[in-house]
Amino acid sequence: MDVNNDLRKERKSASFDSEKLTEILYNGKQMVRRRRFLQNLIFQDKYIKSFTPWWNRGREEHYDIAVKKSVYLNKLVQDLNITNNVEQFYIREAAACQENNPLGLHQVMFIPTIEKQGTKEQIAKYVEPAKKFKILGTYAQTELGHGTFIRGLETTATYDAATEEFVVNSPTISSMKYWPGSMGKTCNYVILMAQLYTKGKCHGIHAFVVQIRSLKDHTPMPGVSVGDIGNKLGYEGMDNGYLMFNNYRVPRDAMLMRYAKVEKDGTYLPPHNAKVAYGSMVFIRALITGDCARSLAQACVITTRYSAVRRQTEIRPGGEEPQVIDYQTQQEKIFPLLAAAYAFLFTGNMMVQEYNRINADMEKGRFDEMQVLHALAAGLKAFSSETTSNGIDKLRMACGGHGYSHASGIPKIWANITPACTYEGENTVMYLQCARYLVKQYAQAASGHTLVGFMSYLNNPVKQRSSLNDSLNMVDLIEAYEHTAARLIKVAATRMQILMKSGMSMEEARNKSAVPMVYAAKAHCQAFVVKMFNSVVNRRGMDPAVSRALQTLCKLYAVYGINQRLGEFVQDGFLNGQQAGLIQNKTLTLFAEIRPDAVALVDAFDYPDEILQSCIGRYDGNVYEALYEYAKMSPLNKQDVQDSYYTTLRPLMKGELTFDVPTAKL
Amino acid sequence: MDVNNDLRKERKSASFDSEKLTEILYNGKQMVRRRRFLQNLIFQDKYIKSFTPWWNRGREEHYDIAVKKSVYLNKLVQDLNITNNVEQFYIREAAACQENNPLGLHQVMFIPTIEKQGTKEQIAKYVEPAKKFKILGTYAQTELGHGTFIRGLETTATYDAATEEFVVNSPTISSMKYWPGSMGKTCNYVILMAQLYTKGKCHGIHAFVVQIRSLKDHTPMPGVSVGDIGNKLGYEGMDNGYLMFNNYRVPRDAMLMRYAKVEKDGTYLPPHNAKVAYGSMVFIRALITGDCARSLAQACVITTRYSAVRRQTEIRPGGEEPQVIDYQTQQEKIFPLLAAAYAFLFTGNMMVQEYNRINADMEKGRFDEMQVLHALAAGLKAFSSETTSNGIDKLRMACGGHGYSHASGIPKIWANITPACTYEGENTVMYLQCARYLVKQYAQAASGHTLVGFMSYLNNPVKQRSSLNDSLNMVDLIEAYEHTAARLIKVAATRMQILMKSGMSMEEARNKSAVPMVYAAKAHCQAFVVKMFNSVVNRRGMDPAVSRALQTLCKLYAVYGINQRLGEFVQDGFLNGQQAGLIQNKTLTLFAEIRPDAVALVDAFDYPDEILQSCIGRYDGNVYEALYEYAKMSPLNKQDVQDSYYTTLRPLMKGELTFDVPTAKL
Repeated sequence: MDVNNDLRKERKSASFDSEKLTEILYNGKQMVRRRRFLQNLIFQDKYIKSFTPWWNRGREEHYDIAVKKSVYLNKLVQDLNITNNVEQFYIREAAACQENNPLGLHQVMFIPTIEKQGTKEQIAKYVEPAKKFKILGTYAQTELGHGTFIRGLETTATYDAATEEFVVNSPTISSMKYWPGSMGKTCNYVILMAQLYTKGKCHGIHAFVVQIRSLKDHTPMPGVSVGDIGNKLGYEGMDNGYLMFNNYRVPRDAMLMRYAKVEKDGTYLPPHNAKVAYGSMVFIRALITGDCARSLAQACVITTRYSAVRRQTEIRPGGEEPQVIDYQTQQEKIFPLLAAAYAFLFTGNMMVQEYNRINADMEKGRFDEMQVLHALAAGLKAFSSETTSNGIDKLRMACGGHGYSHASGIPKIWANITPACTYEGENTVMYLQCARYLVKQYAQAASGHTLVGFMSYLNNPVKQRSSLNDSLNMVDLIEAYEHTAARLIKVAATRMQILMKSGMSMEEARNKSAVPMVYAAKAHCQAFVVKMFNSVVNRRGMDPAVSRALQTLCKLYAVYGINQRLGEFVQDGFLNGQQAGLIQNKTLTLFAEIRPDAVALVDAFDYPDEILQSCIGRYDGNVYEALYEYAKMSPLNKQDVQDSYYTTLRPLMKGELTFDVPTAKL
Repeated sequence: MDVNNDLRKERKSASFDSEKLTEILYNGKQMVRRRRFLQNLIFQDKYIKSFTPWWNRGREEHYDIAVKKSVYLNKLVQDLNITNNVEQFYIREAAACQENNPLGLHQVMFIPTIEKQGTKEQIAKYVEPAKKFKILGTYAQTELGHGTFIRGLETTATYDAATEEFVVNSPTISSMKYWPGSMGKTCNYVILMAQLYTKGKCHGIHAFVVQIRSLKDHTPMPGVSVGDIGNKLGYEGMDNGYLMFNNYRVPRDAMLMRYAKVEKDGTYLPPHNAKVAYGSMVFIRALITGDCARSLAQACVITTRYSAVRRQTEIRPGGEEPQVIDYQTQQEKIFPLLAAAYAFLFTGNMMVQEYNRINADMEKGRFDEMQVLHALAAGLKAFSSETTSNGIDKLRMACGGHGYSHASGIPKIWANITPACTYEGENTVMYLQCARYLVKQYAQAASGHTLVGFMSYLNNPVKQRSSLNDSLNMVDLIEAYEHTAARLIKVAATRMQILMKSGMSMEEARNKSAVPMVYAAKAHCQAFVVKMFNSVVNRRGMDPAVSRALQTLCKLYAVYGINQRLGEFVQDGFLNGQQAGLIQNKTLTLFAEIRPDAVALVDAFDYPDEILQSCIGRYDGNVYEALYEYAKMSPLNKQDVQDSYYTTLRPLMKGELTFDVPTAKL
């Protein structure tokens, strides 16, 4: 089918070549070509194409297909010898972008945990079979009553020196493991996080490798209760599970003993360094910013293309109905989020690079920079997932009624990414971790220490007034962000100090300052993202037209962000009312500047229709034809006349209902 | 089972009697008792209890059960002679609170439209059989390519004088009717909104009663294509449909001719008064504020109770894990939304009362007040649904991981109410309708007219500075809201004027001012809600303890609202930085004041567990036991070992996979 005329015009009139921007996003022409090659391999794959589309699956079918696809893809990358992580990701993205992977935690949590925390013998015993999928594992930490606070976990592993075994128990209902992915039905092993008891003493949380299902017939081991936790808002293909133990015995070497140890007689030897697991948590959180960016980008592609095709209402009476993207209000819904998607993509990449650099240092024993990265990764994980979850939902509604249909693809993208606000550390807890670090750094700077790197802005003497003028240059905007972040950190720190002076404990004062602390962390994170975005768009060697388009987006990100949190910038007079007005006007001007480039900016994300799976976000813009095709596939259209017509509607119409309404009760 | 100790304590220590507040919410002791009586009738009903719970249904089962429940409930209220609308609502709420009603539009749109717009003969012909369910109808307006802008609809009804029939056509793919509820599978009639053509001329949109399915066997009529539009984010029990016509002929009296007429020879007679349908649209929008309030209230009940039961992390090292509701950040998530739920409940009631009063006037030919109500209903519909949709999602996340499970009940409440942001007028369009009225009123006031009623605040000379002091009394807070609303209306109006003076057409200027206009409308609506809330909580004769608790909530609503949009209040210096600080501190103080009453405030909504259908929002607080029961019901737990183990996982583990990966392609 031909490409819709409006979309064709949009692409022609863009100020830059979207392909050049794609090459920046995917690290060069070569990688772009390779990515497309791998995608096409999948798009043409008969087995992958053979499944019911996700929007028409029941829960059991969802899980069944998720297992089949995952197993197939693992075999595919093995047979094709695709070992590069990024390439494997592209394959999975192409094959099951909006679906779950029941073998994912086996590979990113089960195996790596044993590799990091196991002894050589344990690695040999478990990792080799795991890599060959002879055993299937996951990571069982969260309990029914316990989430982010690990020390509160209740599952116990009590050493019995007589038999040289641990006796594993779920002593209360709230101690039941609940939520771990792939645990309900898929796995036969778990990494179990449990309170270690030996010689009558608790030594806190340790990791154990525990078999939960028979390798013969996959039934639960005696003493183990395990199953799926039921239907959720999304993640239908994933068997998030529950798991309970009743005096279940595992051998002594089930405990991962690279660091802490329990000797045969039950003697406990603590680990030398408690911060071992620290790095991988930071890494996983750093990755989430990129995950969010991609989901937000996909929703932006769909909404922008649809808004270019959709015509609605009239600006001039009797005139042609304009493209909805020509409405200023529509631009306000989409463009700031498009800017955020780019900002998060670049920030996510940078976080991974920083992690790799700092992690290399850490291997050499230098832990100092990991702290700032830890705080930043926590804050950014919260900031990017919050913006993304809210943003995708806003984009969904910007598509009007069709956004609500699974045909738009947006509800599914949202349902898959919104858990990022909760998993790997609940967002508020993450903001508070970040804020605690900021408050400490603030105290350091206040007491005369010179901070370095990302925190150095706290060194600056606090300027009283912004010199922002109508050129609204990035230097002034960044200064406003830094000033406001520094001020909000100070507000939170001061409040804590005052409360403590009034006699409150530090902990109580911290809780009574938690709301201002969250604001401080958000301000810090947004300032950081603005700076990162700005540094990328000014990189040398970039195609000038691309660079200009990105600079405009970056400016929008900066000014719109200030306007959204305007009170914080104006409250102390750093920006005055007139400067605020400049920012508000500039926002509207920037919408108009971005407007002609909007479609090219989303095309550059290079998401083929097969990945987006959206009737209204199609590259060719033939949205109405696609919506009609989607409708015809409805499960309710398998029969022209539903059974309930015969059982219920016809008797109703004929006055022959046989319901026995218990009137006697009245 | 016993009530959880924490909840028991919460209820004991509340400052007021929640039952007294319940009586205020439901119009007296008598009505509370009647509501509970009707609810219990339903809760004990064997037929209603016999269905699979919604969270475990596939799409077809969803629809089937929705039809059966709806038909049964209709018979039940008929047999029991329950004729009062409110009582019927309580019954439906008790029987299917989170479910859809495929007979709803038959009753609230199909029959009333014929009653209002049909001739006596048409009423006799259609309404009588419809009331007896001999025919089943719905309202077919929205098209695949056309939503809020009615004049853009493309379906045509062309009069053929030779046969005295209308020939109905769907001339383009975008003209297909798409979305109308109950249209896909349930109904055999529709009110069809179509462009009327006669004697070669188009006379715009008119309503026709059109049969779409056979009364004999329910198959589509020849010339009619009809079906379900496929799966959506929610509304699984509803058969939103598509509908197309191909030279489909209907008799002349299919056109509703109480106002406009087409004579036998094809002569068109226009209606005398075009504003006839105006009132019912206002009424339906006015009802949405109440719908939103109830959904938000339900989510608040769930989140508050769960937050009182859930214990997490530690405030003091080694201390007991506190109830999460003791965290200031959790209070910030819940309490402002709890305040909003109360505010919207009261505002929704008030809107319906106002409608009834003004509608009575209108029947007497007085249309003036309907205009202000129309603008207000549009704005409030958008304001309340936006707050509710975003708010419920925030409450979901405030429940951590469990909020994501359907076990919490929140995702379903959200999925059912979030379409309120789109249906009955897309929210941005609603804000703009409201804003256009405000700008006109502003011009009136500026040119010396004295405005009355809800708009009279635009008469006041704009004060330069607020006299708000640390007592933060409601008079000053309301003044701040009114001042800011007036200022933002002025900003939008002035921008439009400037753009028009620069040579832009009014329409173009309006579009280029649309973002500031939306801000103005939001400010107006929130000011209105604050005033309504304040007037209710100060009503005479209210129990003093209840009144105090509500006054605290109202104050929180007011101060938190200012803090959320602080920039708008501070930008022109009306509030200064120090006053902003007072507001921020007061917000935190109010959280602490509301904290002991939180559970009583949500208990007062009086939603039984059977309505909430939430494991974590239970009255008795036994959330973990309920979550375990929920898990056991998972569709994946019907078999201990899933089929995909045999087909896929076992072959994987044994190295016996038979997938044929097309390696040749690489």
